[in-house]
This record gives sequence, C-alpha cells and structure tokens, in this order.
Amino acid sequence: MNVSARNVFAGKITALTDGAVNAEVELTLSGGDKIVAIVTEGSVQSLGLAVGKDAVAYVKAPWVMLLSGAPDVRFSARNQLAGTVSALTKGAVNTEVGITLAGGTVVHSVVTNEAVLELGLKLGEPATALIKASHVILGVPA
Amino acid sequence: MNVSARNVFAGKITALTDGAVNAEVELTLSGGDKIVAIVTEGSVQSLGLAVGKDAVAYVKAPWVMLLSGAPDVRFSARNQLAGTVSALTKGAVNTEVGITLAGGTVVHSVVTNEAVLELGLKLGEPATALIKASHVILGVPA
Amino acid sequence: MNVSARNVFAGKITALTDGAVNAEVELTLSGGDKIVAIVTEGSVQSLGLAVGKDAVAYVKAPWVMLLSGAPDVRFSARNQLAGTVSALTKGAVNTEVGITLAGGTVVHSVVTNEAVLELGLKLGEPATALIKASHVILGVPA
Repeated sequence: MNVSARNVFAGKITALTDGAVNAEVELTLSGGDKIVAIVTEGSVQSLGLAVGKDAVAYVKAPWVMLLSGAPDVRFSARNQLAGTVSALTKGAVNTEVGITLAGGTVVHSVVTNEAVLELGLKLGEPATALIKASHVILGVPA
Repeated sequence: MNVSARNVFAGKITALTDGAVNAEVELTLSGGDKIVAIVTEGSVQSLGLAVGKDAVAYVKAPWVMLLSGAPDVRFSARNQLAGTVSALTKGAVNTEVGITLAGGTVVHSVVTNEAVLELGLKLGEPATALIKASHVILGVPA
Repeated sequence: MNVSARNVFAGKITALTDGAVNAEVELTLSGGDKIVAIVTEGSVQSLGLAVGKDAVAYVKAPWVMLLSGAPDVRFSARNQLAGTVSALTKGAVNTEVGITLAGGTVVHSVVTNEAVLELGLKLGEPATALIKASHVILGVPA
C-alpha cells in the first residue's frame, strides 16, 4: 500500500486520553521522538488503539508549520518538533523543507519560497516543525 | 454564492453524535456515499443540524490524502472513500486527482506529481481518498 | 522568532469554553475582528490560556476557504470573516488572496487560479474567508 502523505511516522502508542467525541493519542517513534494525534473515539474503538500497540502517524507536508529563531512564543500545537534543517528542495512557488529531529525522524513541510527567506532557513541550522494534533491521521496494521 | 473548496458534497444528515465541545455528523449523499464531519456544538445549535436535515460538506482538495494498493493499514480518518481514479490533471508541481466513488460522487485531491508516481495512480485503477472528519466544513441552506 | 504561517493575528482572549479534550478559545483582535480556535485542554493548561490574556492566532494560507456572492448557505466553520478583496497575487497555479476585514485585519488565503475565476474575485469586491476553529494554532508570549 502507498500513501500520498509525505510524513509517515511508525511508532508505539505510549499514552491515550479519552474524551466524549475525541481522544488524544501519543505515539513514540523508534528514535524517541513523539507525535500526538487527536482522533475520534470511533477510531479508538474500530482500530483497537491502546497503550503498547504499534501505530503509524500520517501528516501531509502542507499541514506542517515551521518556526526559526529564538522561541519567544509558546504554541497550542501539541507537536513542536525541534530539529535541524536537513533538506531544502525549491520549486517555482514552494519549497519542501526536511527537519531532522533529535531521534533521527525527518519531518517534511511545504512552505512558500518567500517563507524560506523570511525564516532564513539554511541547511544545518535549527528549526522547529509545528503540527496540530488534529491534523495527524493514525493507522494500524490491518 | 461560490466557494473555493473543490469538493462540495450535498446530502442529508443521517447520524449525529454529541460531545461537550464537538459533534460528529454523518451526511449521506444522493448516491449513497457517506461523509463524516466534526463540527463544534456551537455550529450544531446555530445551524440547527439534526438527523433528516439537508446539508452540504465542503473539503479543500489539498486536505484529501490518497491511498493505492492493497490496504494493509487501517486508518483513524473517519472518511475512507474507496473508488476509481477518474481524472488526473497534472501541473508543474502538483496533480489534481479525481476519484469516483461507488455512489457516483467524485472526490478531488491535490497531491504532488511525485506522489502520483509513487502511488502508481492511473485512470480506471482503484484508489482511496482519506479525509479527516475535522477537515470537513458543513453548510446548510440559509 | 519567525513563523511560516501567512496569517498571524495578535489579540486578547475574550471567551473560553472548556470540553473534556478540547477547548474553544475566542480571540478579539485590536480592530475588533474575532478569531475562534479549538485547542486541547492540555494546551489551555500549559499555555495558561484565560480570558483577558494576550494571545496570537496562526493560520496557514492554504487552510483558508473563500466565498463570494450572496450567502445562501450557513456554514459550520466558526470563523466566517466577511471583508473586501484587497490583494490578488497570481502565481502559475495558485493565487494568494488578501481579504481586509471591517476591523482592518487582513486574512490571506491561497486558492487555485481556477477558483479565483469561478468566484469572480476582484479588488474592492466583497468576499468571505472561512477558517475552521480546529485549523488555528494559538501562541502566547514565552
């Protein structure tokens, strides 16, 4: 099976908080990086999501927001993934940016070329990827 | 009135599950295809959403993720719309992909040209569109 | 600090509704325009979100849907920001559209060039930006 999402993060569920309609699921990736997803309780049931189970997080690159510079703001986004710029693939309008996290996970983002200049993104420099938990799709082996 | 969303799905509300802040709303389209949306309870009240009422689901094409091949993963996305690739409109960077569902609904997605190759998308071949319920905007006649 | 989000709206929290997993936060901007965000209760706690506190809302331009013409549909999107088209920057495939609200806030959206034609967007004409509350990221001074 193939998926159009640029970010495919395999890991293990390490926390699960239930709500009335939605649940918050924390996935710990092999290198120790963590991704939090908000999914419906219907999905928790139908996928059998539980702490200790394997799961995969899918995130389309345009849903990843990037930060650079000293963090003078704290964000509501549950996923604030600090790392180093490891890829910059420039197109006519947008650039795909790769950020390698401490645990080795590479997060891909698509931002405008203008944003790359404004953020001063350069290979080897620090940057942070922000992903809302509600933008993460979870999958489990069928 | 015109809307920039590429996907405009008219149907009837066939299920509604309330939560503290959010509600899950199922829309059945004329051909029988179903779309699930998560909206706030504030919207349920202000729009008068209820089972049996007409409603329209709006989804921007870049929010639709695509799958191809044998489904060896089960997903949290509430909308997993299996169909046949019925349109491939290639641009410089992205391709707009049309997927026709069993009930005749056409779902439009925008993915990178690279993803089209990786997924091996071809006209007439099966593919699945994934849409998170939280990415669907609902409308009702004013 | 720099952010890749095209929309950065600074304001004050004027309402906060708690849920089991998520909370709805209303931000009033300096000119009186309002933005509603859905964030997790975890974020409400960790950021110390409360009525009267300063906060900033971040929204990537591709997450903004546009409407034109007489509003014959009512929408679930909590943010329905009526204004006037004040910028149209056309690219090869997409156009960045600026909409100036009554309070002076400019909302940026990226839509396809095709959508600009279909909506008949022109400088000085009315248009409405739709933003789902769950697509808004909140920030507070660190």
